[in-house]
Amino acid sequence: MQLTELSQIHRPTLDQALEVIRTRAYWTPHPEHPKAYSGDGKAAFDALLGGRIDLGQPGTDDWTGGEVSPYGVELGITYPHPDLDVLLPAMSAGTGAWRAAGPEVRAVVCLEILARISARTPEFAHAVMHTSGQAFMMAFQAGGPHAQDRGLEAVAYAYAEQVRTPTSADWSKPQGKRDPLELRKSFTTVGRGISLLIGCNTFPTWNGYPGLFASLATGNPVLVKPHPRAVLPLALTVQVAREVLSEAGFDPNLVALAAERPGEGIAKSLAVRPEIKIIDYTGSTAFGDWLEANARQAQVYTEKAGVNTVVVDSTDDYKGMLSNLAFSLSLYSGQMCTTPQNLLIPADGITTDAGHKSYDEVVADLAKAVAGLLGDDTRANALLGALVNPDVRTRLEAAAELGEVALASREIAHPDFPDAVVRTPAIVKLDGSRKYWATSDADAAYLSECFGPVSFAVAVESTSSALDLLRRTVRDKGAMTVGAYTTSAEVEQAVEEVCLEECAQLSLNLTGGVYVNQTAAFSDFHGSGGNPAANAALCDGAFVANRFRTVEVRRQA
Amino acid sequence: MQLTELSQIHRPTLDQALEVIRTRAYWTPHPEHPKAYSGDGKAAFDALLGGRIDLGQPGTDDWTGGEVSPYGVELGITYPHPDLDVLLPAMSAGTGAWRAAGPEVRAVVCLEILARISARTPEFAHAVMHTSGQAFMMAFQAGGPHAQDRGLEAVAYAYAEQVRTPTSADWSKPQGKRDPLELRKSFTTVGRGISLLIGCNTFPTWNGYPGLFASLATGNPVLVKPHPRAVLPLALTVQVAREVLSEAGFDPNLVALAAERPGEGIAKSLAVRPEIKIIDYTGSTAFGDWLEANARQAQVYTEKAGVNTVVVDSTDDYKGMLSNLAFSLSLYSGQMCTTPQNLLIPADGITTDAGHKSYDEVVADLAKAVAGLLGDDTRANALLGALVNPDVRTRLEAAAELGEVALASREIAHPDFPDAVVRTPAIVKLDGSRKYWATSDADAAYLSECFGPVSFAVAVESTSSALDLLRRTVRDKGAMTVGAYTTSAEVEQAVEEVCLEECAQLSLNLTGGVYVNQTAAFSDFHGSGGNPAANAALCDGAFVANRFRTVEVRRQA
Repeated sequence: MQLTELSQIHRPTLDQALEVIRTRAYWTPHPEHPKAYSGDGKAAFDALLGGRIDLGQPGTDDWTGGEVSPYGVELGITYPHPDLDVLLPAMSAGTGAWRAAGPEVRAVVCLEILARISARTPEFAHAVMHTSGQAFMMAFQAGGPHAQDRGLEAVAYAYAEQVRTPTSADWSKPQGKRDPLELRKSFTTVGRGISLLIGCNTFPTWNGYPGLFASLATGNPVLVKPHPRAVLPLALTVQVAREVLSEAGFDPNLVALAAERPGEGIAKSLAVRPEIKIIDYTGSTAFGDWLEANARQAQVYTEKAGVNTVVVDSTDDYKGMLSNLAFSLSLYSGQMCTTPQNLLIPADGITTDAGHKSYDEVVADLAKAVAGLLGDDTRANALLGALVNPDVRTRLEAAAELGEVALASREIAHPDFPDAVVRTPAIVKLDGSRKYWATSDADAAYLSECFGPVSFAVAVESTSSALDLLRRTVRDKGAMTVGAYTTSAEVEQAVEEVCLEECAQLSLNLTGGVYVNQTAAFSDFHGSGGNPAANAALCDGAFVANRFRTVEVRRQA
Repeated sequence: MQLTELSQIHRPTLDQALEVIRTRAYWTPHPEHPKAYSGDGKAAFDALLGGRIDLGQPGTDDWTGGEVSPYGVELGITYPHPDLDVLLPAMSAGTGAWRAAGPEVRAVVCLEILARISARTPEFAHAVMHTSGQAFMMAFQAGGPHAQDRGLEAVAYAYAEQVRTPTSADWSKPQGKRDPLELRKSFTTVGRGISLLIGCNTFPTWNGYPGLFASLATGNPVLVKPHPRAVLPLALTVQVAREVLSEAGFDPNLVALAAERPGEGIAKSLAVRPEIKIIDYTGSTAFGDWLEANARQAQVYTEKAGVNTVVVDSTDDYKGMLSNLAFSLSLYSGQMCTTPQNLLIPADGITTDAGHKSYDEVVADLAKAVAGLLGDDTRANALLGALVNPDVRTRLEAAAELGEVALASREIAHPDFPDAVVRTPAIVKLDGSRKYWATSDADAAYLSECFGPVSFAVAVESTSSALDLLRRTVRDKGAMTVGAYTTSAEVEQAVEEVCLEECAQLSLNLTGGVYVNQTAAFSDFHGSGGNPAANAALCDGAFVANRFRTVEVRRQA
């Protein structure tokens, strides 16, 4: 594989990505429809089961595995367990050549990795489905093209950032009648060191690719530490990356996998090793905060938990609002970091195109919309997927004790996977009066994240009260998303103001086929990086700019 | 003052700055020669002495001061001391309008501030001279045009970073035969909160302006906490900023001063206040490390101490090398963070155009070059300036005990300021054999920063040994600059490799009128941000990208 050939193939894609991150228009080179892909993904996935994924990594001292699909299937796949004292030095060995390759070569090598992953999307779809519990179509789209989009977006940002400074410059400073001072300068982007990706259970590829590709494209080796329940999608990713690096003439050890034994908790010791200079993490607030506080030798990018709010003030499309919200609450059983949790509804009801609706009516109608959307088991299974782990079910069951249940969660049988735990979302009514949250030690249930298919219909005194609660929630708990429904220009402006001040991403009056919990790469930012839910956004300059440094060498000309 | 007028005046300058940070060519809108400026700077400075600088800030609970010029003059100026519980909220009050103004207006307001400071350069020169101890011409250039250049550079980076995302976008996703999904999106850059500038004693404006203007241009209020011995230059800066903000229709409290009582140590309590979201700091490693570890609520940009090295391998311009090094060691009595400290010279000497020179000869010739450069007291005073504080003299005197003194420091009388402490640099010979530094607990004197007019001529076993010591020094102690002299392509490549790997800025074979300790805004990076001397470089994308976030609002179209 010639590097010039890689440039010819991928430079146009890179250029399109560079253009679209500036315009934020719709674009993707990765089709969403399964029929755009060839190959039998199921057969490829099945062939992996019970086998060993040998990546040929140095310092492999054991084989480990133990993934059990949320759909009930034991994967039985084993992965290399690393002796870090051997693997980490081996990962650094290829850094010089990777640095010398420069930003464009690194970008097109990354694009080749993404292209090969893209070609295997059907196989990745099964891998994501059987580790995250996502339904097949969601695993296909979010785990495939959408994840690849986010990876490509990160490569584009990384490339753009690195080429802002030229590789060389002539500098000539006039000195009046004397000869000018003249220097010849060269500028080289250098990576920071080994980058650690700590993967998550729910979106191993979607949340993993931005950091992986941003770091690799900026010259850093990347060690991938997957969630123990979601190793396969990232192991396949590492496999493809090593294959491409090798074929392109680089050291395959620039990308490696660190699988761990059950209960080993390798992330904690890895994160503070001096070789680790960058960390990308998606997961619990507790461990994210720990990383930020303790991995002081590294640049740490975290996406943690938040409490997402939808303010319901008024609407001119009541039906559209209900069906949009119903879909948002149902998708992947509410197990998205972007799923709305708190629906703030004025206690005296709202104005709609279908007349005034009391708080009780809004909640009942929403419950009906969800029940309707999920009334057919086949459709419900296709939307919900399986609960990712037993904790989610425990939390769901406990939620019924928190208040009046407006919509009870329903168990659904999966025709293909009898052991899958599939549950429809619950809606619980809670009193959102100020007295319950306007104190510094408020412990209202809706002021904590309740991850999973649970939403709270919170009766607030007024829209103004809703905005205050929104502000407090974002400030104290963080939010990946905020939604609002209103026909009032004044309310619209007020909710925008809260989001600008508290730094949260806002979706207004979504009643069609776009949902508050979905963001599109190249156009939408995922998270803001400015509230407690995440310290970075996907993807912007700040996400890539500090993954490398620029070394200048100047010589007298 | 109309904002459109400000745009007309300053947009061309901004555009030129945007262009030149891409090309890295020579450029400045701020002339270096005093004759380019009008106004009696001395008279303006004298008029300030013994007076009060009343900035009209809210929450002023006292007046404080106590600066004594390193040249012996008591400034007798008092400044507002803040009640932070009043001042900080007042600073945030204008944030909304400042955010709404957008990146271009913020940039041109910053440029107007810089233009007014530029017009008062002669006055600032005296203020910098009598707080830092710099000689007049250096205070004029580094404290005036060069500092303004670095401020403008930061504004350009901040502007470029903010406009990478458009203010709005239409997004249309095809849906096959159905109508496309359409969204209208808006993107607003929002500041993070109050930015704290912790100023330094030696370069209050040069090291202060990048952070100040980067934060202000990205929408953040800026609280300036000057070094207690160098308040005036930053107080004048704040005064100008408040005046311009006010005239442009913004809240002047977006920029404020926090002067402190002697020994109050206000920086430590300020740095951890929740309102402070960004910190820029130049100073000791100890406090810089403390800030990084403790000011966890803020983005922290630090420039700390380092140990700068020059590797002397060979030269084809022995005389040029000696005179260039002599100037570098002498300028501002070696009190620059970029002054070389360790001159690594092979014990068996070097090859030069003037024949082979032994280690002793090189050191003696360098001592002679320094002595010659500073032989005339008038010239010496013009180059050296005064020692910034008594600690520097103590350190200088102690250095003579460390090894054989190749060049003793000489006390020079200043004709205008009899109380000024003016000292020529000392050069001390040290044994740089590996046995003294190749252990983990090495305590060789040259492995610590010795801030002030002290350089070590370190006899190393070979150039290869020099490169190993350079690597170790940069990795463990950090470096703002590295210099090297060599005629060997192989050595040149090897020293470049060390600098790329350890992330240090390298100047090769400087023998003319450019010195390793000087960097030019728009072209040279100051520091790398990738070794322990500093966690940021002046100036690049990483220096500005995380001072703001982007909030997206999307609506169904």
